[in-house]
Amino acid sequence: MSVPLLDECLSVLTRTPAVLDVLLRDLPEVLTTATEGPGTWSPSVVIGHLIHAEKTDWMPRMTIIMEHGARRAFDPFDHEAQFRQREVRSLPALLDEFKDLRHESVGRLRAMDLTAEQLETNGMHPALGLVTARQLVATWTSHDLGHILQISRVMAKRYKSEVGPWVAYQTVMK
Amino acid sequence: MSVPLLDECLSVLTRTPAVLDVLLRDLPEVLTTATEGPGTWSPSVVIGHLIHAEKTDWMPRMTIIMEHGARRAFDPFDHEAQFRQREVRSLPALLDEFKDLRHESVGRLRAMDLTAEQLETNGMHPALGLVTARQLVATWTSHDLGHILQISRVMAKRYKSEVGPWVAYQTVMK
Repeated sequence: MSVPLLDECLSVLTRTPAVLDVLLRDLPEVLTTATEGPGTWSPSVVIGHLIHAEKTDWMPRMTIIMEHGARRAFDPFDHEAQFRQREVRSLPALLDEFKDLRHESVGRLRAMDLTAEQLETNGMHPALGLVTARQLVATWTSHDLGHILQISRVMAKRYKSEVGPWVAYQTVMK
Repeated sequence: MSVPLLDECLSVLTRTPAVLDVLLRDLPEVLTTATEGPGTWSPSVVIGHLIHAEKTDWMPRMTIIMEHGARRAFDPFDHEAQFRQREVRSLPALLDEFKDLRHESVGRLRAMDLTAEQLETNGMHPALGLVTARQLVATWTSHDLGHILQISRVMAKRYKSEVGPWVAYQTVMK
């Protein structure tokens, strides 16, 4: 990753809380709690997942890489944590918490002022093996975009039974 | 569609310009012009498509339904119009134009103050045949969400060659 790519990732990472806020805040609950079926995630659950990732995945792993390199493996990530968290918090509260956590994470990443060389530092993923700091930043960025995609898909599918013949033109419904 | 569903659709339709603005404005051009390969649409092209749909598809078709019912078929929609338009306009200009057009469309739809009964009015799609005003509003809404999904996917895929081993966890890359 050249430093321009780090700037590009930061440009995405910085705006994600605002994208999710505009996309979800004050929407009817029927949309924010919609799922794609049993065991799948609603938009609210996705925000809980992003909060947990912010606390335990991205910058904590970056810190491990910069302090220990590949000598210390990352802690495994709990993909189900948000199911325990969300029961006590409203979507607006989740959006606020995510915004604050992301603001802090991005501030820490910017303060590291990583060089192209530092971004090549290896880390040790507990399941995937050797990774680099550069790959971690790119993964964080595409992970954000993947969850914006997921939220849009879940909400679009809510209209599957409402669009009538137009279902034929909407690949998102398939 | 009950009137609550119309309100729900309006809640989505009203916020789409802000979602796209926060998601795209001032991003590096490498992201806003990225595609999924030859013949596929970049985020900028998608905004051009949404502008064209706003001008010629959604409210024009709703007006035809309310004035003529199924006696007058909709005009066919040009799915390639944005390729001619975008050559002369920047992404910020496209985002501004979409925001203005959507504001006007939503104002017109709200002003119609459609009842549940009126939403059952038939229209004639030139290819799909009989549709209802209700299905048109639902399709408009899921069409917005489908293009937010598309833009997120196109941008996420830009990182496919950057995420290294994490590609295994990112279904969006497949």
